[in-house]
Amino acid sequence: MSVLVVGSVALDSLETPFGKRDDALGGSATYFSTAASLLTNVRLVAVIGDDFPEEHVDMLKKRNVDLGGLTRVKGGKTFRWKGKYGENLNEAQTLDTQLNVFADFAPELPEHFKDTPLVFLANIHPELQLRVLDQVRNPKLVAMDTMNLWINIERDRLLKVLSRVDVLTINDGEARLLAGEANVVKAARAIQKMGVKALIVKRGEFGALFFDRDGSVFWAPAYPLESVFDPTGAGDTFAGGFMGTLAMAGATTGSALRQAMVMGCVMASFTVEEFSVDRLQRVTKAELRTRFELFRKLTAFDTVEIG
Amino acid sequence: MSVLVVGSVALDSLETPFGKRDDALGGSATYFSTAASLLTNVRLVAVIGDDFPEEHVDMLKKRNVDLGGLTRVKGGKTFRWKGKYGENLNEAQTLDTQLNVFADFAPELPEHFKDTPLVFLANIHPELQLRVLDQVRNPKLVAMDTMNLWINIERDRLLKVLSRVDVLTINDGEARLLAGEANVVKAARAIQKMGVKALIVKRGEFGALFFDRDGSVFWAPAYPLESVFDPTGAGDTFAGGFMGTLAMAGATTGSALRQAMVMGCVMASFTVEEFSVDRLQRVTKAELRTRFELFRKLTAFDTVEIG
Repeated sequence: MSVLVVGSVALDSLETPFGKRDDALGGSATYFSTAASLLTNVRLVAVIGDDFPEEHVDMLKKRNVDLGGLTRVKGGKTFRWKGKYGENLNEAQTLDTQLNVFADFAPELPEHFKDTPLVFLANIHPELQLRVLDQVRNPKLVAMDTMNLWINIERDRLLKVLSRVDVLTINDGEARLLAGEANVVKAARAIQKMGVKALIVKRGEFGALFFDRDGSVFWAPAYPLESVFDPTGAGDTFAGGFMGTLAMAGATTGSALRQAMVMGCVMASFTVEEFSVDRLQRVTKAELRTRFELFRKLTAFDTVEIG
Repeated sequence: MSVLVVGSVALDSLETPFGKRDDALGGSATYFSTAASLLTNVRLVAVIGDDFPEEHVDMLKKRNVDLGGLTRVKGGKTFRWKGKYGENLNEAQTLDTQLNVFADFAPELPEHFKDTPLVFLANIHPELQLRVLDQVRNPKLVAMDTMNLWINIERDRLLKVLSRVDVLTINDGEARLLAGEANVVKAARAIQKMGVKALIVKRGEFGALFFDRDGSVFWAPAYPLESVFDPTGAGDTFAGGFMGTLAMAGATTGSALRQAMVMGCVMASFTVEEFSVDRLQRVTKAELRTRFELFRKLTAFDTVEIG
């Protein structure tokens, strides 16, 4: 099965307690594709400017990412984000955002993208997410991401998107904001009532919770790491690992969804080890298998006999 | 196998966003014993005053807790704690502490307590913890709890205790304070270097991490609850479930330790549902089995085939 992602390809300038980096490859669609392409065929829809280095395009090409939906705007500049992380690394402080060519992004799917069975709408304006939904034909599963900004200023349109997708991936803070409810379980239930079938609440170093259609809950752990170098892109990497696993399995059963959740966390655990996709793009299938088993060992326990 | 606990039996006055309660049964040894006694024989060492209601003593007696080490001080008043929780329920604000008879607590173990194979030193002055260690004979496993206060004002004595026990249970904030290290994994490794063999880092709604002697890590989840009524005693309940499970298994193997970690979280998930030990004391073995399986379903996933 193939996976379609519509999102951003960007150049990030970052500062963490451990270092600094200018014009690093970033963007939701980049992290998503780099992760998912290790497991399946990826189709990417995004926009870049003249200034976007060809080496990054080559990197994605080498991973067999179908760039038929990547538009290079002549005379345009690529989306740039500048951010800084403090000691706790849980939240970035945005120093500067230059939308550039992303401001006029109007995703047009190439004809052969329209039948992709698995679709991920990365964090873009809800109007653009609706535009993509109008172009795809009978997808098996659609997942979406969003952010505080759209919850605050585009709530109505966001709710429209929600009612048309299967899975929402969202940070715990965003879930609380969207639901107006402090308890994460109550917030998730409230959001499901807004129309989305299932919900993934991302909780950073505490892993991610999956609230399924049938009311069941699954908790995928994050690996307790001695050092997190740069958390940028962890959420989009998670989504790439999640959707890539479903594509690889060719299924969206309960068991596949759980494996996909864990693989999302496994992939993200690599991303945060270095700047940008530096570590993620070097990950091998053997490393994936090893770390997936590490996650199993982290949480595995036997049934107890209570006498 | 029997379990020995040395700690406090108290009367708590509490306020949470959901209600208020005066002179509720509390204390580390109380929560520990109520939990552990569902699984094994418990021996309790603590001190109370004249004012301590006989009905609470009866409750523990009915659970077959050996109260041979419970001293009632004539003319004395029971240890009282008054606290308040805000909306997030993660940390209590102490409004008043009256040590009363607890101020002169000098634990003396009855002769038949001294050979107890499993020993839990609840959060008391490190000097008293050492005093207990001097009285027990060849225990199979000793676990201990502590708090910010002793880390700040009795560090040297606390380190002496640490070097003589097998397992430290500690909150994540306390672990960071003790180690002087913000990252929880680094903090745990640093504390193991101080002499304690293994370490349980309690993380409230995010469960608990077990750092074993061999360097392996296990993550026991907390159940994502829609409502936490009163978190008081969750940590001591956890310890009771943990030690009770080891006692029931008669083993401290890796597998038993993992089951014990989960059972600790299972027990704690009942405690927080109501004030005091109200819910915990009603828990049946059937309920324990059901919830233990719920915890398995929360985290269980299959190995993935990466093609």
